[in-house]
Amino acid sequence: MTKEDIIKLIKKQKVAIISSINEHGYPVIRAMLRPRKIERNELYFSTNLSSNKVTEYNNCPKACVYFYKKGLISYTGIALIGKMEVLTNQEIKNEIWKLGDSIFYKNGKTDPDYCVLKFTIENTRFYKDLKTEDVKF
Amino acid sequence: MTKEDIIKLIKKQKVAIISSINEHGYPVIRAMLRPRKIERNELYFSTNLSSNKVTEYNNCPKACVYFYKKGLISYTGIALIGKMEVLTNQEIKNEIWKLGDSIFYKNGKTDPDYCVLKFTIENTRFYKDLKTEDVKF
Repeated sequence: MTKEDIIKLIKKQKVAIISSINEHGYPVIRAMLRPRKIERNELYFSTNLSSNKVTEYNNCPKACVYFYKKGLISYTGIALIGKMEVLTNQEIKNEIWKLGDSIFYKNGKTDPDYCVLKFTIENTRFYKDLKTEDVKF
Repeated sequence: MTKEDIIKLIKKQKVAIISSINEHGYPVIRAMLRPRKIERNELYFSTNLSSNKVTEYNNCPKACVYFYKKGLISYTGIALIGKMEVLTNQEIKNEIWKLGDSIFYKNGKTDPDYCVLKFTIENTRFYKDLKTEDVKF
């Protein structure tokens, strides 16, 4: 498994499972729509500034993003370990905005509740059936 | 949403997504087969004693177990926050053993690498489409 194989696999997924750490030090899992942008070892997601995950990532940027694919007899999973940053600058908000987003944000691209989560991969763990492999980024 | 509704929803799922915290304080996500046993606010999973998650839960029992169901237009997710305990006593190993497990454990129920993860729910967060709700256990 190479870095390129992993990026290829991520690009095919519709849902990303993410984890933050809450104020009591517990991991908290949520599902999100797939990243809007993937560049180098960075994934960019769209979200609400007022959400709990934003508060949690601002307090503790340590994060995990997980993708998986379940076949009839096989199972592929990829855990990306790294840091999550909350971005509110207009440039990146414009860049990853999609037309349908107006349903969620009344003020469009400049809505103060619309923000971007930037995840930087530091380590990865790849699961295929019963084997695991660490892939360097 | 009641506690009973949540248990009902969990019992229908085939896969559980779990998170531990690794030695560097990062959350780590993995998928597992659904719990073998659900009793009160406790879920029991079968796993390998030699796995990384067992090491991680022994170091830090704080855990999250997540289940989700994706429909065509709706999305339901349930995050259970609590503690994970690694059990190796023969009584519980016997109780949750399944016939097919012999494929993974050569020595059967008494295989020293076969163990049980017991998760105790402390808090839950329920997601339905764009709304969230905290359900007490």
